[in-house]
Amino acid sequence: MSISAFDHPFLSSLLGDEEVSAYFSAEADIRAMLTFEAALAKAEARHGIVPQEAAQRIAEISTSFQPDIFSLKSATATDGVVVPDLIKQLRKAVGDEAGQHVHFGATSQDVIDSSLMIRLKAVAFLLAGRLFAVAAALEKLDKQYGSNRLMGHTRMQAAIPITVSDRLRAWRDPLDKYRDRLTQETFPIQFGGAVGTLDKLGSKAADVRVSLAQELDLTDEPQWQSQRARVAELAGLFSLISGSLGKIGQDIALLAQTGDEIELAGGGGSSAMPHKQNPVAAEVLISLARFNAVQLSGIHQSLVHEQERSGAAWTLEWLLLPPMVMATAASLRLARELIGNVRRLGAAA
Amino acid sequence: MSISAFDHPFLSSLLGDEEVSAYFSAEADIRAMLTFEAALAKAEARHGIVPQEAAQRIAEISTSFQPDIFSLKSATATDGVVVPDLIKQLRKAVGDEAGQHVHFGATSQDVIDSSLMIRLKAVAFLLAGRLFAVAAALEKLDKQYGSNRLMGHTRMQAAIPITVSDRLRAWRDPLDKYRDRLTQETFPIQFGGAVGTLDKLGSKAADVRVSLAQELDLTDEPQWQSQRARVAELAGLFSLISGSLGKIGQDIALLAQTGDEIELAGGGGSSAMPHKQNPVAAEVLISLARFNAVQLSGIHQSLVHEQERSGAAWTLEWLLLPPMVMATAASLRLARELIGNVRRLGAAA
Amino acid sequence: MSISAFDHPFLSSLLGDEEVSAYFSAEADIRAMLTFEAALAKAEARHGIVPQEAAQRIAEISTSFQPDIFSLKSATATDGVVVPDLIKQLRKAVGDEAGQHVHFGATSQDVIDSSLMIRLKAVAFLLAGRLFAVAAALEKLDKQYGSNRLMGHTRMQAAIPITVSDRLRAWRDPLDKYRDRLTQETFPIQFGGAVGTLDKLGSKAADVRVSLAQELDLTDEPQWQSQRARVAELAGLFSLISGSLGKIGQDIALLAQTGDEIELAGGGGSSAMPHKQNPVAAEVLISLARFNAVQLSGIHQSLVHEQERSGAAWTLEWLLLPPMVMATAASLRLARELIGNVRRLGAAA
Amino acid sequence: MSISAFDHPFLSSLLGDEEVSAYFSAEADIRAMLTFEAALAKAEARHGIVPQEAAQRIAEISTSFQPDIFSLKSATATDGVVVPDLIKQLRKAVGDEAGQHVHFGATSQDVIDSSLMIRLKAVAFLLAGRLFAVAAALEKLDKQYGSNRLMGHTRMQAAIPITVSDRLRAWRDPLDKYRDRLTQETFPIQFGGAVGTLDKLGSKAADVRVSLAQELDLTDEPQWQSQRARVAELAGLFSLISGSLGKIGQDIALLAQTGDEIELAGGGGSSAMPHKQNPVAAEVLISLARFNAVQLSGIHQSLVHEQERSGAAWTLEWLLLPPMVMATAASLRLARELIGNVRRLGAAA
Repeated sequence: MSISAFDHPFLSSLLGDEEVSAYFSAEADIRAMLTFEAALAKAEARHGIVPQEAAQRIAEISTSFQPDIFSLKSATATDGVVVPDLIKQLRKAVGDEAGQHVHFGATSQDVIDSSLMIRLKAVAFLLAGRLFAVAAALEKLDKQYGSNRLMGHTRMQAAIPITVSDRLRAWRDPLDKYRDRLTQETFPIQFGGAVGTLDKLGSKAADVRVSLAQELDLTDEPQWQSQRARVAELAGLFSLISGSLGKIGQDIALLAQTGDEIELAGGGGSSAMPHKQNPVAAEVLISLARFNAVQLSGIHQSLVHEQERSGAAWTLEWLLLPPMVMATAASLRLARELIGNVRRLGAAA
Repeated sequence: MSISAFDHPFLSSLLGDEEVSAYFSAEADIRAMLTFEAALAKAEARHGIVPQEAAQRIAEISTSFQPDIFSLKSATATDGVVVPDLIKQLRKAVGDEAGQHVHFGATSQDVIDSSLMIRLKAVAFLLAGRLFAVAAALEKLDKQYGSNRLMGHTRMQAAIPITVSDRLRAWRDPLDKYRDRLTQETFPIQFGGAVGTLDKLGSKAADVRVSLAQELDLTDEPQWQSQRARVAELAGLFSLISGSLGKIGQDIALLAQTGDEIELAGGGGSSAMPHKQNPVAAEVLISLARFNAVQLSGIHQSLVHEQERSGAAWTLEWLLLPPMVMATAASLRLARELIGNVRRLGAAA
Repeated sequence: MSISAFDHPFLSSLLGDEEVSAYFSAEADIRAMLTFEAALAKAEARHGIVPQEAAQRIAEISTSFQPDIFSLKSATATDGVVVPDLIKQLRKAVGDEAGQHVHFGATSQDVIDSSLMIRLKAVAFLLAGRLFAVAAALEKLDKQYGSNRLMGHTRMQAAIPITVSDRLRAWRDPLDKYRDRLTQETFPIQFGGAVGTLDKLGSKAADVRVSLAQELDLTDEPQWQSQRARVAELAGLFSLISGSLGKIGQDIALLAQTGDEIELAGGGGSSAMPHKQNPVAAEVLISLARFNAVQLSGIHQSLVHEQERSGAAWTLEWLLLPPMVMATAASLRLARELIGNVRRLGAAA
Repeated sequence: MSISAFDHPFLSSLLGDEEVSAYFSAEADIRAMLTFEAALAKAEARHGIVPQEAAQRIAEISTSFQPDIFSLKSATATDGVVVPDLIKQLRKAVGDEAGQHVHFGATSQDVIDSSLMIRLKAVAFLLAGRLFAVAAALEKLDKQYGSNRLMGHTRMQAAIPITVSDRLRAWRDPLDKYRDRLTQETFPIQFGGAVGTLDKLGSKAADVRVSLAQELDLTDEPQWQSQRARVAELAGLFSLISGSLGKIGQDIALLAQTGDEIELAGGGGSSAMPHKQNPVAAEVLISLARFNAVQLSGIHQSLVHEQERSGAAWTLEWLLLPPMVMATAASLRLARELIGNVRRLGAAA
């Protein structure tokens, strides 16, 4: 099916991103959730909460376990989360003795939020690389055309001339900052148990959490299950990235409209006017920027997250965050492509 | 893949809707677009613009034509729309002589917007039916428990008692109005050609459009390619529906929290606390209401649709509208289920 | 003070609207609320609930009563609504005997929502008049320049020529529809009492409401205190209006950028480049369109209005709706001005 | 006038904030803009661009100059910005000789954005102080009731007990982080001249900017006139603050609804039910959180800031940012008040 343009049979080539979408497949999510369960068993074994052999058995099975997706789907309709059924299936696969130690002291949110962080960490690394690539493409443009003259425009009117370098600096500077922020970002474990108090782990709670974070290569932090600022901050960064790329898209679309200060390869065809060359990637950068700006509002609505865990606010995040990541990834892909297609910028001074 | 919870391997049982999502599959879109091309050829033949035999050939082929999806996908990346490649493929399938008459005088937006209207018309009918079903379920509740006493609450505080009927009226009245609006809604043809002037059809333009609308069972209207109010109004209605259902969800979640004025079957399980019964459907109604409220903002951003056709504003609609339809459909599905699961409401007076 | 650009000492000349802002002054609100209290007393007297003399006394005093604003302000901080203190002051002014009949059976929301409807009704009439004036200005342009040639643009690229009339039609058609909708709009009384059941009025409740609606020249309808679709629909219409005007602004800004197809008088000056003529009104139409698109999202969040009355959702409306009305009014004012400043459009064919 | 609840004659006691609103008065803005002009003259004198005496004269006059507000207002309607007329008035007041050196090399955006930063810097300091006060109030609660038992709730259902300390930690931790971020925030000068290149200052441009930043106690940074990430990041932080306070409001409203785990003083009165105590401040915290979440979307739309300066995107910021600051300030004021009104939390264990 294809509700979302991001994973649509034909729109995804324009609006999607194959590399990043892989991290938001159900399979990648399940893999990360099972990795969490394996790591949890090991961490709890290290602190004497779960027998070593049970932990080993759980870790082994989790690594290769292929849950029954139909069962997951049907249970999610009732439970509102996939975890209870996933655990049930995993326990059965692990077997009676070790099975009872699966997921000990944890709750659905621990599994789902930690899975999200595992995957966002990998995605952030990818996005930082793309920001670097876009910046490099801009640098290349600067070397070729930087000293060219460009008419500066303020309030949609020709003002006085600038250089191509001047414009490119306004495009590039924010991207470098975002890359720095992405690479400095930390991705925390979520581990709180039923109501955030790790009630079943007693005095060993913090130690287990430290070990679990280490196992998963996430940052150790107290649970943040009802404190969604971290998610909102990341979403804000995603929207800043697509927003600044949207500005590039808007500028290039305006340049392409007049047409004497830019030459672009790779424009799109029209079904009615085969002679036209549409600056498709430039326009789509604007669409994606506005898309993320819209979604961000919903992510911030989710900050009103009632009590120890809100189904309503949390589910809203699930609807909004993966598309935001995709829009950001697609923006970076398109920006790089678009900048690579610039054949001339400005006019020889 | 599974960026969108609406067509996700396991989340879709909670957040998706099988019946309605079928209308937003790539396949349904392609079918509707080919139906448009068939109808266009027939309408143009009726007015002597296309030879009868060519039109018949085009209509025949279109009915069963299965385009190469990979080609569509790859072309969409460049063209920003699927139509040019779809037409190219269709022309080839139709053959040289008749093929040149395919898509005559039309443009991509005619095909895509008309396909959308064909499918939204069917979906509106379905949603109206569901509104009726929800209202019927509420009526049933009213018959059973209407005279029961319920504590009225204002500003989150117990106020004075009302009857269950009083509360049910506030839930139901808006739904009846939305159903009326949905059933009265018209769904217009979009037909404007390259820049909205149907320049290739000369004096026969309006007649062809009337015939085309008839063929497709859509309302005849002048082109609205840069006038997106119609889309925004429909989106507004979708968000009103999910918003009013969100109010029901919020009310039920609050009733369930105290627990002495409602009994609910079918609540969700917890991975940490097997004894709990979570009012999952009630919460998700809130999530979906907030989701649509967020998306509506983007649809209204698309009203700033520059010149004869905006790639940027139009593409933004593609990202936003199908998820809004799905959120509305899922809301109605969940509301009916939730109301059906009420086992008692209020207390005997 | 001047948090809001709409009533800012110097920005309001650009972004505000004197005529419409008068309806959202505290004074206009108080006047309408006192009108409600007068009408309520009269309606209740007609049905024998309040003594005739008391009603007359209440109506007389209400007409000229000037409440102590500082007291209202200080009480609102605690009560969250202005009404309890306003009633207290009014009762005192009316005097002991008749005073006890003031506000009988009503609640704060009845007063505030009805005051809003009284004022929105007047504003809708004004806005409809402005839509007419903008349409008339467009018609004038059409007469002068309609047959001129304009380059049609799709996806930010020159496509094929259209006429000025073609473009003007896309600008005007939506406005005519909005005017029709505004003039057909009904503005209902809100009257529900403490929890929406008019519990104190017994069997006379509906009759009193009918009389009250007549007195206030509002439509009679059952209470809608937790059903906010009416507010959301009006807000949606406001955003459609400013959105369609934003499209005009965007088109004119793009025309002005190239500059050979439009001549505009009245552009703005620059502090750095005195030679420039900025298409200020065109740009601001875009800002106002995007502003309203943003606010609409919040109005739809308010549909999740818990129980018999939500303080949270209702207060959110107070923050969002008056600025939306202002943005709409300012849009219409600016659009008319901008269109009136067009000195040439297109090129002689 | 009173379009905005934030500076409304009676609503502002609930929704406004006197201390912070002072920074967004037209007067404060004018003062800061004149401070910019004084500092600019001095910085340019230091680098030999403006004669010392002229600079001294400009600085002197600027300090006490009271512009004609009606003239500012009327000019803003045409120019779209207040600066050209302000400079014209200031030049006249300074006199012919020195007057020609006023505003040398600067543009409107330099003045307006720098004025914003001067005031936001002061406001950020205030807000950080309030975050500290709220945290201190929470700490006090923790000392008094921290060991009390509270029923933990997940998905709107009673789960297992936690301590009051557990809940308070979820409320407080985010606030401490926001305070740190606010105090570490830098506030940059905006100085770019007509098109961002400081074209009139030649090789001395960067030196003048450094001196100007020093004079104004702002951070030195290259111009960011079309790079609005800084504004968007601050707006994001404001919305995080109000969002986390909204969570506290929601939690307290839910506690107050059941009523056995909290005792609150200072609740609001009702016009219909004098016995009720409404948790007004708790509800308003939710409204303000949702308000800011909505506005943030518009601020991110402004990232699509075309060319060297966009009138449309920039004006949109003016409409959105001051209300966001106010909502944040009001949230902090109300949160402190609400927490101070808690008379008991949880039940003795």
